[in-house]
Amino acid sequence: MKISIKRQYFIEQLNHCLKAISPRTTLPILNGIKIDVSDDQMILTGSDSEISIEITIPAEIDNEEILEIEEPGSVVLTGRFFVDIIKKLSGDFVDLETTENFQTKITAGKSEFNLSGNDSNQYPLLPEVNDADSLVLSSAVLKTIINQTNFAVSLSETRPVLTGVNWNFNKDNISFTATDSHRLALRRLLDKTFNTEISNAIIPGKSLSELSKILTDSDEDVEINLSQNQVLFTYGNMRFISRLLEGNYPDTSRLFPENYETKVSVNNSEFYHAIDRVSLLAREGGNNVIRMTVENNNVELTSNSPEVGTVNEAVNASAIEGEDIKISFNSKYMMEALRAIQDEEVTIEFFGTMRPFTITPSESSEVVQLILPIRTY
Amino acid sequence: MKISIKRQYFIEQLNHCLKAISPRTTLPILNGIKIDVSDDQMILTGSDSEISIEITIPAEIDNEEILEIEEPGSVVLTGRFFVDIIKKLSGDFVDLETTENFQTKITAGKSEFNLSGNDSNQYPLLPEVNDADSLVLSSAVLKTIINQTNFAVSLSETRPVLTGVNWNFNKDNISFTATDSHRLALRRLLDKTFNTEISNAIIPGKSLSELSKILTDSDEDVEINLSQNQVLFTYGNMRFISRLLEGNYPDTSRLFPENYETKVSVNNSEFYHAIDRVSLLAREGGNNVIRMTVENNNVELTSNSPEVGTVNEAVNASAIEGEDIKISFNSKYMMEALRAIQDEEVTIEFFGTMRPFTITPSESSEVVQLILPIRTY
Repeated sequence: MKISIKRQYFIEQLNHCLKAISPRTTLPILNGIKIDVSDDQMILTGSDSEISIEITIPAEIDNEEILEIEEPGSVVLTGRFFVDIIKKLSGDFVDLETTENFQTKITAGKSEFNLSGNDSNQYPLLPEVNDADSLVLSSAVLKTIINQTNFAVSLSETRPVLTGVNWNFNKDNISFTATDSHRLALRRLLDKTFNTEISNAIIPGKSLSELSKILTDSDEDVEINLSQNQVLFTYGNMRFISRLLEGNYPDTSRLFPENYETKVSVNNSEFYHAIDRVSLLAREGGNNVIRMTVENNNVELTSNSPEVGTVNEAVNASAIEGEDIKISFNSKYMMEALRAIQDEEVTIEFFGTMRPFTITPSESSEVVQLILPIRTY
Repeated sequence: MKISIKRQYFIEQLNHCLKAISPRTTLPILNGIKIDVSDDQMILTGSDSEISIEITIPAEIDNEEILEIEEPGSVVLTGRFFVDIIKKLSGDFVDLETTENFQTKITAGKSEFNLSGNDSNQYPLLPEVNDADSLVLSSAVLKTIINQTNFAVSLSETRPVLTGVNWNFNKDNISFTATDSHRLALRRLLDKTFNTEISNAIIPGKSLSELSKILTDSDEDVEINLSQNQVLFTYGNMRFISRLLEGNYPDTSRLFPENYETKVSVNNSEFYHAIDRVSLLAREGGNNVIRMTVENNNVELTSNSPEVGTVNEAVNASAIEGEDIKISFNSKYMMEALRAIQDEEVTIEFFGTMRPFTITPSESSEVVQLILPIRTY
């Protein structure tokens, strides 16, 4: 292998690739990035066996030369270290040349590195994903969906399926659900369907979190393909593959109550900052519990901690309906739920002190956030 | 105590004050910030008993009202938590009111916090520092001096005096020395003297590092006063007091050799980046050792590590004099030494493979960085 490649572009692609590499891998070769050079392109691969990222670099982009190939070939080089070297070199282009035993010479300016590489035949093959049926979403929409649900996945391995987001392909919509059994985040893509034989897929939260770092807010297409065990996201010159979680996702549809007892509408950002202030004291007091009181057409947030003090926030509500209520909840869950709603006004519906309550945009049913209250007496 | 204060200005002053507060204090009241309000000003005090910071806030600055005093008084409030509250409140002004038992009510907008405060009489008195004789330096110069020396103090408590920077008041200059016994940083203020009875002061590195975060690059004066055990820096509305280290600082003047065997001049920034690249491999190989070779009028940096590979950097030297030499050193020390020199060109003088070498600006003797080589054979 002997090539010359535009350094800045190479760094960006390598950085994407690194997102799949974990320092805690059990297979040493997976610490590396695989570089495959054919006659007309280079393919970079990084993987931690849960996530794999494959990036194709062409010789030219918009008539600008990116990659000059003198001799095809392939090698695996230690990921993070190799990328650090490319970053710190000087000059517009960097040259790579592999000699015997996968020794790789990296030169740019007055610098010459000689690294021990590995045989790319030792690198595991990526899983095959059938790309017959595709679901297509824009990068911005997919990124938003991930941000609106992924924070609510469980961090505990007690029930592994809860560490993922459940993508449900319904007859007339697609829904995305995450829950750690204390709160739940639901996003619906109304008027969008995916005709596949698979009725749902549970995608690991960790994979979605890495994917969302790569996605931009653009309207560029992301093509999504599913097989029994894997999901493939194709985005620009990148293929992002994640394994799926096995097992049955709990039926969460029964969790959503009907007929609220109390309903309050507030400005999202104002309410968020009020919760943020009250939670300061709640946190200092050693828990995150704050209390919300709806009484005499007033809404108030309070928290108290015997050693530290008390706090009181009056909340501006644009509408209050139904019964008075006093209810306690975890302020962190409330703040994450509010952040996941982009709308200016949100509506909170309560169904009694001990039953889960919901937070939704006042004008849409695309997002539903559900939180279990905390018993404080 | 009952006051109203401009929130943004208050936050800035509190942030300065926090720099003196350590979460690991043994005296619980030192977790707090002392607030003293007299008829016409407020004084904030933070301390960890090593460093104390005292800030005076007047009622007006440039005819703009900063502080409105309704009732003088004083209280101690938990530092970090109190500052977090002030930061998260809304509105331009925040009101503080102390009632019985040092309960303090903080109000702004629709928020009301009630915090348990402490009696300010329990707060330790700050040490007195005689301010008869002052050394005056500009903020920018003092900040530079700290940055050029403080990185070289010892982090080990084995020889406590080495954890400080030695300020030496000589007959015709002032010198600042730091060493961890592997390398030494010396800065001289030529043509500047300080006529005091004290011939030197060892200021803890930690204090200088906090002070340097507060100092700006302006030419505003910093007044420095010394007593036997304390140093006081007066800067704007702030008094920064640090204890001094006790003990005798070693005589470092004998360390500087004369009559170099080899002398090399290089561009500071180019050389720094070359060292940075070579050190990548040195670090990956598990140590920080790199080798410099001066031979046949060429300068080369190399490093190798059997498992990882080798690296080779040709260095552009603007002048090479004297004997050929091969010498090994810690790349981290070299990079820190180069960063401490602001000049574009630096000169490195070698006195043999096993003796310390020096790095200085090519055109000045204000800064001398000295590094002990590493024996590699």
